[in-house]
Amino acid sequence: MTTCFRPHPDGPGDPADPADAPTPLGPPWPAGATASPSGDLSIGGVSLAEAADRFGTPLYVLDEAELRARCRDYRAAFPEAEVLYAAKAFLSSAVAGWVAEEGLGLDVCSEGELRLAAAAGFPPERILLHGNAKSPEELRLARRLRVGRIAVDNHAEITRLAALTLADVPQRVLVRVVPEVAAGHHEAVRTGVTGQKFGFALEGGDAAEAVRRVLEQPGLILAGLHCHLGSQITSTEPYLTAVDRLVALLAEIRDRHGVQVPELDLGGGHGVPYLPGERGLDPHHLADALHGRLAEQCALHRLDLPRLLLEPGRAVVASAGVALYRVLTVKTGADGRVFAAVDGGMSDNPRPALYGSRYCARLAGRAPAAGAALREVDVVGRHCEAGDVLVRAARLPADLRPGDLLAVPAAGAYQLSMASGYNLVGRPAVAAVRDGRARLLIRRETVEDFRAREVHA
Amino acid sequence: MTTCFRPHPDGPGDPADPADAPTPLGPPWPAGATASPSGDLSIGGVSLAEAADRFGTPLYVLDEAELRARCRDYRAAFPEAEVLYAAKAFLSSAVAGWVAEEGLGLDVCSEGELRLAAAAGFPPERILLHGNAKSPEELRLARRLRVGRIAVDNHAEITRLAALTLADVPQRVLVRVVPEVAAGHHEAVRTGVTGQKFGFALEGGDAAEAVRRVLEQPGLILAGLHCHLGSQITSTEPYLTAVDRLVALLAEIRDRHGVQVPELDLGGGHGVPYLPGERGLDPHHLADALHGRLAEQCALHRLDLPRLLLEPGRAVVASAGVALYRVLTVKTGADGRVFAAVDGGMSDNPRPALYGSRYCARLAGRAPAAGAALREVDVVGRHCEAGDVLVRAARLPADLRPGDLLAVPAAGAYQLSMASGYNLVGRPAVAAVRDGRARLLIRRETVEDFRAREVHA
Repeated sequence: MTTCFRPHPDGPGDPADPADAPTPLGPPWPAGATASPSGDLSIGGVSLAEAADRFGTPLYVLDEAELRARCRDYRAAFPEAEVLYAAKAFLSSAVAGWVAEEGLGLDVCSEGELRLAAAAGFPPERILLHGNAKSPEELRLARRLRVGRIAVDNHAEITRLAALTLADVPQRVLVRVVPEVAAGHHEAVRTGVTGQKFGFALEGGDAAEAVRRVLEQPGLILAGLHCHLGSQITSTEPYLTAVDRLVALLAEIRDRHGVQVPELDLGGGHGVPYLPGERGLDPHHLADALHGRLAEQCALHRLDLPRLLLEPGRAVVASAGVALYRVLTVKTGADGRVFAAVDGGMSDNPRPALYGSRYCARLAGRAPAAGAALREVDVVGRHCEAGDVLVRAARLPADLRPGDLLAVPAAGAYQLSMASGYNLVGRPAVAAVRDGRARLLIRRETVEDFRAREVHA
Repeated sequence: MTTCFRPHPDGPGDPADPADAPTPLGPPWPAGATASPSGDLSIGGVSLAEAADRFGTPLYVLDEAELRARCRDYRAAFPEAEVLYAAKAFLSSAVAGWVAEEGLGLDVCSEGELRLAAAAGFPPERILLHGNAKSPEELRLARRLRVGRIAVDNHAEITRLAALTLADVPQRVLVRVVPEVAAGHHEAVRTGVTGQKFGFALEGGDAAEAVRRVLEQPGLILAGLHCHLGSQITSTEPYLTAVDRLVALLAEIRDRHGVQVPELDLGGGHGVPYLPGERGLDPHHLADALHGRLAEQCALHRLDLPRLLLEPGRAVVASAGVALYRVLTVKTGADGRVFAAVDGGMSDNPRPALYGSRYCARLAGRAPAAGAALREVDVVGRHCEAGDVLVRAARLPADLRPGDLLAVPAAGAYQLSMASGYNLVGRPAVAAVRDGRARLLIRRETVEDFRAREVHA
């Protein structure tokens, strides 16, 4: 049973309470999220019910302060490192701006992400281009925009990139290594092992060979080694194992080529809580563990400490996002199961369908009726598919009814960025909240946007 | 191992062969698909290599003749029935026009699909509105456009719809029934059983109660009963069981209310082949079985034969679509596994990630080098996720290289319609082919389309 808050000792709140003080919601909600005794939820000082009325539903609300706080948290934990926000978690011009202002770099993996970042004025030298299948056009664009680093993923790419570079305008590259560390919440996102499409294998010498080839290209500078282990990792152990293996490769490179490689990029995958009581991977805890292990391993191999690079995406943006849906129907099945169908679904959040991801949901905008107990409700989407379930066994008031507003926290990452146009239901609007004010960042997609791409000839 | 064609006795073809005759490819390719001895593939008389050059990749090619032939096949198999194309499989203005011209109706399930159909001039009386979570706005729009039928899915909707109708402009409705028939290829699409969000349960009398409520509304006409069992069903048996149960309900309605309900909608879910050697559900075979069982059951219950409604989506459009990708990299992993990464992926085809769906792929545009054997290759997408695999163990020539073109058949359904904007990789262009000519139906989505929805305030 999934409840979205720790039960308040006084129950759902009494409007006659003289205190009338809002209650902080705590993780997985943004730090400033509160519930008022009258049942309204606020984020960034903005009532979610008012935001839903103003912008319509489904609506994604992004808490700017929460996102910036997560950036600062990383910068404080890793003051010497370069922290790059992983655009794939969610990118918009506003987010690119916030991240840039907080001093983070940006990890992109497509022409689209690169063009958006450039249009938003993101400093190109702080951009890292990733990808297992960069097109020649993407590599040329990255060069033209002078992106700071490119992570090379296969031998053909080294050749292709070398052909685009000259020694007088060299390109800093990272070599993406498969460290044989299995970690993460779902097979589809475990990228640190053999048998998936990314990177050069350590075993068998493929990574060492890639390093050799990069070093022999006059237009390429071997800036560092890179690995990415998976997603939703909540233990430091996989990262420490990766440090051991990559530092050993750094030593091998020093021994073989006489080169001290300056950077070590440990990717992202830092876990975040989706449900109350779940714990994420704390950046400070990770920093302590990583710095210790890195110092130990470098001393062992008599290497200078490389500069760390980190690529959190979800850990920066997930908690900043709250999805708001309007309940359209409430139905009890023959087996007694209760379904609340909302006006969004797998088109705006494909994670439950893709990975079986679990979420929680909370009634927003009103208090439950006096005496309305909580019961298990499956919050389902509006799409033509039985698997279109957003929250299984959410714990919601028994008087839930059409017209009610449901808020789903931890909605900032891998929802909007993976949103589809299924059933020609447009992608939702996105509003930012900060200091009690809300503003629209992205307007709702309509069927007219789809029709605008149709060619009538 | 997945091969995309039955091996030709003469191998990949000899360019010096005086016959130089193209070879038909057979299912799952469109009926008119051929391979030339020089390795080019043609659909609707159009070279896929030329289409890729002209429109770019990833490209979805729709064979108009194939889609129309599938419509005619259904009309011939069910001359007395109303066949409704399920828009959710894939809808565009051109497809709506073809389907309308072939005399089919249209099953829609959102305001977007409804608006697109209306804008394309689809006859509203042949439109059926579905959905487990129709908003008040959608119901009002459907009434304003005078759609022929609305399938009601829950009690609140009956009340809501009744409030929008008057006896002088009544609304024909279908009552969606859960017949307790489990069928289909994946749990996420099994909609004919209790424990999922759709419909009124037969068991416990919920469906009978819905019928009673519809009948007591002066503005609603009970046009029929509806059920939908699942997807990719290749046996007639589940449909026959559904007929038994729904005809029994028709008899119960006659006995209780003195009403003979005129229509029986058995939904869709008709299976199609994705791989060579797989068999779909033949409409003529289904028609024979259904007509026999319906006659038998109606005789048993002394009912007039209801008119059948059918809602094929995939079975109309899947075989008409071919996806074209450009190979960007070919890589051999440490375990010897070969990966060919292409310029599309889970953003344009989420079915492998969602359902573990299997596909095949074929080299297009050139013949393999003399002596190049076939080997197993995982065709992977360009997205930042290990699960982004389009075709596992495709059987492709050993000389596959960057720049090659790969064609994936049976790509017409539930790919484009579920396509996402992941990694800001735009949704692909769609071209129609017919009688040797190709024309663009939908232009490629770019990051500028995304940016156009951004609000800069």
